[in-house]
Formats: sequence, structure tokens, C-alpha cells
Amino acid sequence: MYAAILAGGVGTRLWPRSRQAHPKQFSDITGSGRTMIQATVDRLEGLVPPDRIWVITGEAYSALAAQQLPALRAAQILAEPSGRNTAPAIGLACVHLAKQDPNAILAVLPADHVIPQRAAFQMALARAGEAAAAGYVVTLGIEPAFAHTGYGYIKRGAAATAAALPQSGSPVFCVERFLEKPDRLTAEGFLRDGGYYWNGGIFVFRVDVMLAEMKRQLPALFAHLQAIGSALGNADEAQVIARHWAQMQSVSIDVGIMEGAQRVAMTPLQAGWNDVGSWDALENVLQRDKDDNFIAQGNALSLESYGNIVFTDKRVVALIGVDDLVIVEEGDALLIGHKHQMQRVRDVVDQLRAQGREDLI
Amino acid sequence: MYAAILAGGVGTRLWPRSRQAHPKQFSDITGSGRTMIQATVDRLEGLVPPDRIWVITGEAYSALAAQQLPALRAAQILAEPSGRNTAPAIGLACVHLAKQDPNAILAVLPADHVIPQRAAFQMALARAGEAAAAGYVVTLGIEPAFAHTGYGYIKRGAAATAAALPQSGSPVFCVERFLEKPDRLTAEGFLRDGGYYWNGGIFVFRVDVMLAEMKRQLPALFAHLQAIGSALGNADEAQVIARHWAQMQSVSIDVGIMEGAQRVAMTPLQAGWNDVGSWDALENVLQRDKDDNFIAQGNALSLESYGNIVFTDKRVVALIGVDDLVIVEEGDALLIGHKHQMQRVRDVVDQLRAQGREDLI
Repeated sequence: MYAAILAGGVGTRLWPRSRQAHPKQFSDITGSGRTMIQATVDRLEGLVPPDRIWVITGEAYSALAAQQLPALRAAQILAEPSGRNTAPAIGLACVHLAKQDPNAILAVLPADHVIPQRAAFQMALARAGEAAAAGYVVTLGIEPAFAHTGYGYIKRGAAATAAALPQSGSPVFCVERFLEKPDRLTAEGFLRDGGYYWNGGIFVFRVDVMLAEMKRQLPALFAHLQAIGSALGNADEAQVIARHWAQMQSVSIDVGIMEGAQRVAMTPLQAGWNDVGSWDALENVLQRDKDDNFIAQGNALSLESYGNIVFTDKRVVALIGVDDLVIVEEGDALLIGHKHQMQRVRDVVDQLRAQGREDLI
Repeated sequence: MYAAILAGGVGTRLWPRSRQAHPKQFSDITGSGRTMIQATVDRLEGLVPPDRIWVITGEAYSALAAQQLPALRAAQILAEPSGRNTAPAIGLACVHLAKQDPNAILAVLPADHVIPQRAAFQMALARAGEAAAAGYVVTLGIEPAFAHTGYGYIKRGAAATAAALPQSGSPVFCVERFLEKPDRLTAEGFLRDGGYYWNGGIFVFRVDVMLAEMKRQLPALFAHLQAIGSALGNADEAQVIARHWAQMQSVSIDVGIMEGAQRVAMTPLQAGWNDVGSWDALENVLQRDKDDNFIAQGNALSLESYGNIVFTDKRVVALIGVDDLVIVEEGDALLIGHKHQMQRVRDVVDQLRAQGREDLI
């Protein structure tokens, strides 16, 4: 198995630890001591060797990715000239990989997810690889922990029965349908009815199968990818990529490929997955201490203070009579907010930008 | 007029900016850029020249006082071998001053008060000096802003009428009585009835009058002071001070002298006085910003956050949906607490001490 790690995001809602110069995926957000992209590579250990991992990221971040992932060669880090959503990014990884192993199985992984239970994750990914080998485009379906309205959902269909798929092992399902982000009532219905999973953006497929789907569903994009593929290794590679990239449609793999793909399967994932979309998510990722506080980093001394999330560089943070705060320190910035209002971190970044404080964002 | 600045306290409730190594009075607590003792000296400018100012502090802090007050000579900084409350400290200043000017008028000022309105303060102090010249032991009575239960009170008596007291100028009253810290109902009664003032620990007297009161009311202490006075300038000065200091009674000037003094007067002070006993007091000292936050130091960006008190070294502090917090950063420590629970900062310091974290307190 190969892996393509998508590391193109920005992560504004995780300011101040996520900054323009080192977005979320290049930052340690959970206090693990590893950045999210490092943890993503670590998580593949034993399943995908480092020399089979590609990273697709913005040109501004190639050097950072190389620095944080010293086990990867420079050629394994693919720079997007601009953000074009996930389909072109995955297509770029496919044409690179197709040159060396056209039937390779490729796992696509976002760089900014937390998945604490590594063994369960690897088992699900390996099983998805078996289904991919049998010709399915496979998505990992995340067992929903609650009626989240911020994710797309996957409706499970019948068990997948391709002859090439080993029937021992964890279940593989056909996908009945992909569903857009639901409203609250709909999401609650999904959980009540069962058989619905969060779409976490983790995909596994054979490269030839994916390229065939791109040719069928996104022919213009495929033509650009072909042109890029032919130029790889040539002197004009960079110019060809730049020229074609600028003309590519910005489209997600979900909308562009998955929803219309001919043979789509799903393997369930129950491994504590979390996309850490905002700081309050840390309470689903971190251990709770004896006072119900969640300390990502720092030494907290709390007096009658409960449910706080703390990430600081200080030798001590004293909390007195405060509840449900998020306290995040990074260098020259300190964020203190109520944990139910963490979506508004984006507004903080917008205001700093409006004030011309590019140095702080 | 001379001044004796009492700088012996600890200021535990203003952790983390007040530390063992630089207590409250040697720290900038309000974000003015000056430490409290520096501000105390600044406040005397034009009324008491620097060469007439004594500082009485613990031996551990003499060097710090000298460093923060470069206009003072080393001899003007008097080190107490140990804390013996205010009567011995004031007595020590008196015996020093008596050697050079036995009828000098001395103002005693705590080093850790905030008095924003300097002109009003100097007028009250100058008027107290006139009453002191006429033979009164004078206390400044602070016009009470509310029914505080943490201060002693002074009950005003009739107007002072000593022949030597110029009758032009602001009023000088006899003191009917000194009152211990009252309970809430009593304090509310004081405010309703009028004629009651906070005892802020600012005194003005002639040195000969004070020494006579000490001889009369605290004869044992006076004898020790006499012995010290005789040894000043001798080779064995330090040993004599150490020997007698150890035997002195630990007693406050209020209880030991003021309550029983023969001719006590009071001049009212209305100058924004505040003793900054804990962090929440800053809202009575600092300007309120457009969002009702009080920023001692730091650049705050607040979204729906009101009534917070902020003192940080950061280039930006973002507040989101939080109210009535105290946020104080100093070096390796960060304090975040509800402003109505700031008395409990003392418990934080106690817990750190119990954990052996002397480096943090």
C-alpha cells in the first residue's frame, strides 16, 4: 500500500497554534509533541513504509513538510501551485504513482486528523486495501459518535461481494449513497436509524481504477493530469504542471468522483477519529484530569475550575473558579474563550487581518 | 517634609506579578511602567525631595530598593533584620531622622498604594504637615468609596483648633476614634451616617512628637530605639540593631500609638486611593475600554467579552465570550480566574509552596 497525505489546508479555527506560516497540519495541536502531519505518518508505521508516502501540499509549505518529515525524500513532497480542492491533488498523486506502479493501492489521508487507536485504524485501512485490490473505490466510514451537522454522511448498503474480496475479515459494505451535511433533525434521524457513517475523507483505491474514474467522470481534469504525467521527469515538468494546474477545475473528490463512481465500498472505522475542527474538539481527544480539565500541554493548578482546555508554554497556569474555557498560548499570542464559541476564532483571525497584523495570523 | 516609605510587605494575593523575589511594591501591578515603590516616590515630587526620603524594607529587598530608586543614597534605605510590624519600622526611621533634624516633619507612606490624583494627594499631605507642625499626629482619612469591610475606619471629630495650625486651607479634624475592620452592616452604617473614613496607613507627624508618644505608650520599644539611635554611625551599628530588633515587640503603629495618642488629627484624602489588595481592585484603578475591559498591559482583541482585567506580555490576547475574568501573565506563570475569587490567589501560592515550587512563588 502507498499513501497520499493531503496537507493543503489552513486551519484558521485553531489559531494561535495554527498560523499562516505553519497551519494546523504542521503544528502540534494536541500536545503530543508531534505535529499533525508527523502523527499521520507515524500512524502508518508497519503498514506503509516511508518511501511509499506522498505528501501533497501548497508550494509555501513544501520546505516545512520536508523538514518535519525527514524520512521522506524531496521527490515525495508534491507542491500544488495553488489550492484546487481534493480531486486535482489526488489526481497529481495518482499520475506520479502510476509511473512507478500503475496498479498500486493508494490510501488518501488528510494530514490534520487525530486517530488515537492506531491498531484499529490500520486494520480498517488494510481491509479497505483488500477491497481496493478487488476493484472498489473505498471510503472509510467513521462510526458516528453523535449527530454532527458539520460532516457529510455515508449510507451503508449491502455487504460487498466481489469475488476477489477475501470474505474473512471485517465487513466491507457497498455505499448506498453519499449525503451532504445534514441539519440537526436529519442527523439525529441518521443516528437513530443506524447504518450511517461520517465521511472523514479517507479513501483507498487502485491507482488505475481512480484514473479510469477520473477519465470517465472528469475528462477535462484527466486530460490535464495526463499532460502532467507525460512531463514528469522532463526538464519542463514544473512549467507543464503550472500551466495545466491553473486550468484545472477545483472540485472535491467526493463530488467529482465518489458520488458517481461505479464500484464504491465502505469499511467502518471505530478508532477515536477526530478532525479537531476547533479547539473545543480537544475534549474528545485528550484525557480528562481529576478536575475534568483537559491539559494538552502545561502544568495546571486548578481551584474549583472544571471543563477547561489548556495548551500553554508556561511552567504553571493557575485557574480559579473558571469553567469551560479554552486557553491556548502560542508565542506572542494568547487565546481565552468560552469553549462553546470556538468557531469564532475565525473572526479573531479576520479582525487581526483587517488590522494589518499579518505577523500575528 | 521628610518621607518614610514602608516597603516590607509580601503581596501574595498579587501573584504571579508579585513574587517572593520581587513583592508587590517592587513590581509594576497597574501597567504604568513603574513599580509601586517608584510610583510612591514619583508621587512626592515637588513636595519631598529624594534626599529626604527613607525606605524601610526587609534585608532581602534592600538591593532591589536601591536599584529601583537610583536617586536615593544607600544610607536612605533602612533594612529591617526581620518583620516587626509598623511601629518598630517607623521608630527606626524616627531615630535616624532625629539625629539630623529632631523636629523634622515625617510622612509615613506605604509603598504599595495607588493614588492616581497626585495634586489632591500632595495638597492633603501638605495640609497634614501643617497640622503635624502644630503638634498633632496626623492620619490621612480616605473618603470611603463603598462599605469596604477590609479596612479599619476613622471616625471624624470636631475641627482641630490648635493655635499654631493655619485656619486657611482644607479642613483638619480631630479623631474621635479608630475603628477595627467592621462587618458589612456596620460598614454600611458608617457610610450612611457619614464622617467615617478609611484608615489607609498614611501618617504625618513631627519626629519629636512621635518619639515622645513612643516613650509614653511603648516604653520598652522606645528603649530599644534609643539604644539603636546611640549606635548609629558606630562600628557596631549593625550588631546593635540586630540585637535590639530581635527583642522588639511586633506591633502596628495604629494599635501601639495612634489609638492612644494625645493629639491626633485627620485630614481627608479624596484622590482615587486604592491599596490594590487583589487583582480585582484594578477595575477601580484602570480606565475601562470600549468593551468594559480593563487592560493593564497588553493588546486585547475582545469578541463579546466584558469586564475582564488583563495584564500580559503578549502581543495579542484574544477574548471570546468570556466575562469578569482576571488574566495575569508574568514570565513562567499565567493566572486566569474569576474576578470575584481573587482572594484565592493566596491558596494558589500556598499550593505551589506545598508542592515545593519555590521557583514559581
